[in-house]
Amino acid sequence: MIKLQELLHTIEARNHEAAEQTRLHVDQLTKPLGSLGRLEELAVELAAITGESSPVVTPPGVIVFAADHGIAVEGVSAYPQEVTVQMVANMANGGAGINVFARQIGALQRIVDVGVATEVDAPGVINRRIKAGTGNMLREPAMTHDEAECSIQIGIDSAWEIFDAGAKVLIVGEVGIANTTASSAILAALTGADPDEIVGRGTGLDDAGWERKKEAVRQAISMHRPEAAQPIDVLGKVGGLEIGAMAGAIIGAAARRVPVLLDGFIATVAALLAVRLCPKVADFLIAGHRSQEPGHAYVLKALGKEPLLDLQLRLGEGTGAAVAYPVLEAASRMVNEMATFASAGVSDK
Amino acid sequence: MIKLQELLHTIEARNHEAAEQTRLHVDQLTKPLGSLGRLEELAVELAAITGESSPVVTPPGVIVFAADHGIAVEGVSAYPQEVTVQMVANMANGGAGINVFARQIGALQRIVDVGVATEVDAPGVINRRIKAGTGNMLREPAMTHDEAECSIQIGIDSAWEIFDAGAKVLIVGEVGIANTTASSAILAALTGADPDEIVGRGTGLDDAGWERKKEAVRQAISMHRPEAAQPIDVLGKVGGLEIGAMAGAIIGAAARRVPVLLDGFIATVAALLAVRLCPKVADFLIAGHRSQEPGHAYVLKALGKEPLLDLQLRLGEGTGAAVAYPVLEAASRMVNEMATFASAGVSDK
Repeated sequence: MIKLQELLHTIEARNHEAAEQTRLHVDQLTKPLGSLGRLEELAVELAAITGESSPVVTPPGVIVFAADHGIAVEGVSAYPQEVTVQMVANMANGGAGINVFARQIGALQRIVDVGVATEVDAPGVINRRIKAGTGNMLREPAMTHDEAECSIQIGIDSAWEIFDAGAKVLIVGEVGIANTTASSAILAALTGADPDEIVGRGTGLDDAGWERKKEAVRQAISMHRPEAAQPIDVLGKVGGLEIGAMAGAIIGAAARRVPVLLDGFIATVAALLAVRLCPKVADFLIAGHRSQEPGHAYVLKALGKEPLLDLQLRLGEGTGAAVAYPVLEAASRMVNEMATFASAGVSDK
Repeated sequence: MIKLQELLHTIEARNHEAAEQTRLHVDQLTKPLGSLGRLEELAVELAAITGESSPVVTPPGVIVFAADHGIAVEGVSAYPQEVTVQMVANMANGGAGINVFARQIGALQRIVDVGVATEVDAPGVINRRIKAGTGNMLREPAMTHDEAECSIQIGIDSAWEIFDAGAKVLIVGEVGIANTTASSAILAALTGADPDEIVGRGTGLDDAGWERKKEAVRQAISMHRPEAAQPIDVLGKVGGLEIGAMAGAIIGAAARRVPVLLDGFIATVAALLAVRLCPKVADFLIAGHRSQEPGHAYVLKALGKEPLLDLQLRLGEGTGAAVAYPVLEAASRMVNEMATFASAGVSDK
């Protein structure tokens, strides 16, 4: 276990030399200049991130972090809390959306329980439980400072394990009833965003539930006064165990120069937390898709990222990133497999 | 060989029953209602097209039709005509963009020479040559009426061959220097669109070339006066051999209830031709992406189709559709592989 602050100092800058080599190579490929648009930009991006001018992104790694939220008792989700553990079991059986799309892209898959209310006893679920769900942030801090740090550490460990197993891109997903409430609170605390602007209907709240959710975010922030300049303070007071783990995994990826393909609102809020801990992390992030959750557009803008897809998804679990991954693979294959004008004997004008 | 008019009469309507069954099933899957957005719509669409409530889209089939254009001598392309045959050879060697993305999606691939100026002698290129490129439409019709019909027939044959080999989705691509000029002329003739609005820079024309290209489209239309109500007349006078073949392949797909995933400007103009021959063909089309070529947005609107991706691509060859295909595959896998609330024992609120 490495100290977080020490690790953050090891995160390197982009590799401009590799990026430039890739750019020159892409311009030699048998296609009109610039005609593969965003794929060409992505290829250069991947080179800058990995430091490899012929970046490889196969196989990707998908880690789903699962945890419960004390705030769930306040009626801020359309589903009851027991759905968290039921969905983890569904994932262990390969039946959830993320399993389906992860199989499609040939991903390595991990499910990590960092604090589901009821312990999950299913093969394939990695037990890294910190506690049985966060505290209800309308009554107490979600976590202690130590628990928040621990969630980040579990994320780092999990990412490094999947990289050691061969994953070349990181996708992080989550399951945890009420976790869009915690994500909204983190986002409001970090950016000063108005809850009216960023709180959405999550899994499908009615109008009354939506109002309760906005009010819960407002109250939690006014009660705990999380410090925007202290991301771990924010995570501990109004965050979630799985959100901390996602932020940690993203930091772990940046430290290893592994590209992170971001899913929707919750994953992107976790990424913002990671970026607030170390701004260089932003250089390792690629936005997979734009979710229907209103806060997602807000946090993407805060990170300055333009997503690859806009398919009106709002499932979470990492699904949007998994569906976006083939675009990243196409960019990598373009660099590694297309012929050049010279090699193919094609006239370059 | 079946007569075209007879074949058009065999094209069936959508299967609303299969679509409804799929819609009901999708609402039972372990995810919040509607949370997979466009993927859910696509699944229902695939059911309506195929008549199967559990539609399968693997493997896809990619057919690239190659031909030359007499209008190329007028300086309407950034590349010289010999690039057509060079690119066909590159495709036969697997080095072109479409080869790379077709391999990525596990597609069956075919390259069909319907009229490259110089005969292509490369293994794997299917010889269905009608003539050595079209006539220069500034001096003569591009094709006779019989040649235009013949190009459509070759398309139908090619599609049926790849379906018989197992393809479950059709992607058509093309290679042919100056074929965005022919496509623009077809589009202007069929819709009355102003060339200023739909003629783009193709593979990368400079301003002078762009003006020549617009003027060529204007002159060809005023010289030949193609009849909008007679799509084969339009195809013959200002079209292209490979564009006719693409239209034919699309008709062949509709007749077999195979979904067509559309590439960019040229493929979508071919689809419009097919729809003008038989409006029911429109029900079998899914727009893969929005190209940078300005006429593409125009023809997508004419067909009432919203594309899946917008990645600023403008390469053609079928590449945009191939890059979009994994989204279609995700929609199909969602239906066929995700657990339901009942099967997974997850509370449905």
